[in-house]
Amino acid sequence: MPSPHAIAPPEARLDRLFVALADGNRRGMVDRLSAGPASVSELAKPLGIALPSALKHLALLEAGGIVCSEKSGRVRTYRIAPEAFGALEDWVAQRKTQWQRQFDRLEAYLRDTQEEDQE
Amino acid sequence: MPSPHAIAPPEARLDRLFVALADGNRRGMVDRLSAGPASVSELAKPLGIALPSALKHLALLEAGGIVCSEKSGRVRTYRIAPEAFGALEDWVAQRKTQWQRQFDRLEAYLRDTQEEDQE
Repeated sequence: MPSPHAIAPPEARLDRLFVALADGNRRGMVDRLSAGPASVSELAKPLGIALPSALKHLALLEAGGIVCSEKSGRVRTYRIAPEAFGALEDWVAQRKTQWQRQFDRLEAYLRDTQEEDQE
Repeated sequence: MPSPHAIAPPEARLDRLFVALADGNRRGMVDRLSAGPASVSELAKPLGIALPSALKHLALLEAGGIVCSEKSGRVRTYRIAPEAFGALEDWVAQRKTQWQRQFDRLEAYLRDTQEEDQE
């Protein structure tokens, strides 16, 4: 049976991605993990939050596909998921390209109009 | 007196940005507006949502700095805010750069270790 993540439609995955990033403590964890892997306590301490609260935030970041974790002995280490930033970049790039095309078309239209005026 | 937007700290602005994008209907509006400006009813219709609901979504997108609007006569036109995608791209790019530096350092370390072994 596939995992719930594997069968989730892309829109549900994007919901979880953006929900995960819509909180200052969770973005603080992303900032910390961007500099290298860390344990729960290493992530909780600089934010001044309790471990259970940190674990809840990390669960949302994992559900959003932004971080992944690995248990070695008694320590679970969190790191940035390999595809985390790529998913966000792709989403932005697709919209931005389409949005910029409007201006290219407007520019071409204005150029054509100007050329007609000069004829 | 400055507007609430002007005095909001960057973290609060990022909260609003990601909250605005954490919903399929609102992302649908961003997709539509990426292709060109539109009125509330033009945005509501393809999503199959009522106008009051569409207006609530648009208010969240405006608060997130993703769309802006302009009233001309009786029609309010919505469009993508000029800085919308830039704010997201900057946020991703800063973290990704830091994250990739880890691998560059690891690569340099492995190369140095290999060179020492060969000496």
